[in-house]
Amino acid sequence: MRVHLDCIACTLRQALEAARLATADIDVQERIIRRSLETLADYDLYRTPAELGSAVHELVKECSGNPDPYRNVKKVTIEMAHAIYPGLKRFVEEQDDRLLVALEVSAVGNLLDAGVYGDLRTVDLEETLKEELSRGFAVCDIDFLRADLLGATKVLIIGDNAGETVLDRILISEIKRACGKEDKVNVFYGVRSAPMINDATAEDAVASGLDHDATIVDTGCCTPGLVLRNATPDFLKLYEEADVVISKGQGNYETLSDSAGRTIHFVLKAKCRAVAEDTEVNIGEYVLLRR
Amino acid sequence: MRVHLDCIACTLRQALEAARLATADIDVQERIIRRSLETLADYDLYRTPAELGSAVHELVKECSGNPDPYRNVKKVTIEMAHAIYPGLKRFVEEQDDRLLVALEVSAVGNLLDAGVYGDLRTVDLEETLKEELSRGFAVCDIDFLRADLLGATKVLIIGDNAGETVLDRILISEIKRACGKEDKVNVFYGVRSAPMINDATAEDAVASGLDHDATIVDTGCCTPGLVLRNATPDFLKLYEEADVVISKGQGNYETLSDSAGRTIHFVLKAKCRAVAEDTEVNIGEYVLLRR
Repeated sequence: MRVHLDCIACTLRQALEAARLATADIDVQERIIRRSLETLADYDLYRTPAELGSAVHELVKECSGNPDPYRNVKKVTIEMAHAIYPGLKRFVEEQDDRLLVALEVSAVGNLLDAGVYGDLRTVDLEETLKEELSRGFAVCDIDFLRADLLGATKVLIIGDNAGETVLDRILISEIKRACGKEDKVNVFYGVRSAPMINDATAEDAVASGLDHDATIVDTGCCTPGLVLRNATPDFLKLYEEADVVISKGQGNYETLSDSAGRTIHFVLKAKCRAVAEDTEVNIGEYVLLRR
Repeated sequence: MRVHLDCIACTLRQALEAARLATADIDVQERIIRRSLETLADYDLYRTPAELGSAVHELVKECSGNPDPYRNVKKVTIEMAHAIYPGLKRFVEEQDDRLLVALEVSAVGNLLDAGVYGDLRTVDLEETLKEELSRGFAVCDIDFLRADLLGATKVLIIGDNAGETVLDRILISEIKRACGKEDKVNVFYGVRSAPMINDATAEDAVASGLDHDATIVDTGCCTPGLVLRNATPDFLKLYEEADVVISKGQGNYETLSDSAGRTIHFVLKAKCRAVAEDTEVNIGEYVLLRR
């Protein structure tokens, strides 16, 4: 997906948010904004919004000397997700279509960081997520996914934020069920190679307990979306060989939607106008899309 | 109020909104964003956020050749305000403290433009505004205002958006009552000298019916906040001589809060972090503040 005009102001807003998380030094925050404006002036040099965002978030780390501004955000989000995991696990297992609801839980988990920023009250978190779940997918290619999973033995999930990683354990169980012979199915979970915004690294994936259910693999990328030309050869091999690839979140959609080179099932919430237009849904709607 | 770091991304977001209202030509929209980024890089040359915003909105007009991008937004907002005026007028007249509630109506009227953008449903508009009214002022210097109004014969309101201009007719009635001898009180209503965002011009004030209740005066400014050094000599004389000056909205607060040169009663909703910090309230709260 190309950089939309909306992405420019959004990236600048993100730069300030990250700058404030990275340092309390106002002068450094100001330098970050000045340098971000320089980077944004060259926005047409970047292939996707995620790569533009990456450049600005790298600036934040460099100027502040803080290699992981979202460290605490990720920690708190993972803790919150652990607290609601048992209830949501039971909830999915009570459903008729467990795979679909597990995908919805996985998509809705993308909202967890809003809890950290105070937009959601933690006490109501499970209820709020269940309300969101009731909205379902506005685009829902579940039948394609079900068909692709049947008989698959190698499934790759390309992860997004820390926090939803905990809830993805539920999705992994249901994916194995949907494949058929559960003990023959290997699920791989791709993570960022270094901290980038609140995206999950291997450390976050382990803290989420994902290593019990899947093989955690380093993609080699630390952009907020998988950029294939930066991926490690091992990861690329896995990406090509996997029977099914599921990509989570806006960032991975932005980098993969035009250049995946293979069939991908995208699961995401369209959080902004640019992605909503590209996926042909309204802002705030959920998408399960095969491309 | 100085330009905060938040104001930079917010101004860029506004530039895109205005560009899209001004023209459907994507190339022109893109040129506006590029030139806005250049302007924003020099943000420290601007004394207040409103003056920075003004520079960017002038850019939009220049690049698009559209002298009034918000023309239709203003027209629709004024129509909506006329529709709810009778009900709110009665509502204010039923209250014990009519002046206070008229000020609240005037402040809440600032939300009307959200109706045009689709964030509010018009059918629920009156109810939504009444719900907002129930929040009251988080900072409430009503006793100072009441004392200043008692016996006053010359009152100046510095206007903000088109639309709330209609509801300000209710405020003007209550101001006259609060002054004492109603027939001896002259109320003046200051407007922008040319279109600027959705701020009220003389034409908008007349379309709102304000000329029946007050003398409409051109401030000489078309920044989205009154900049005294740009005001006409006639307006400045009125500004200095008035017994009471009431300033509406964030923009006028931004330009006057540090350099008013006289006592001003500010009425506003703190819609962003920068103004909320400066007025020491939470985002979204209402302020009636004497300075």
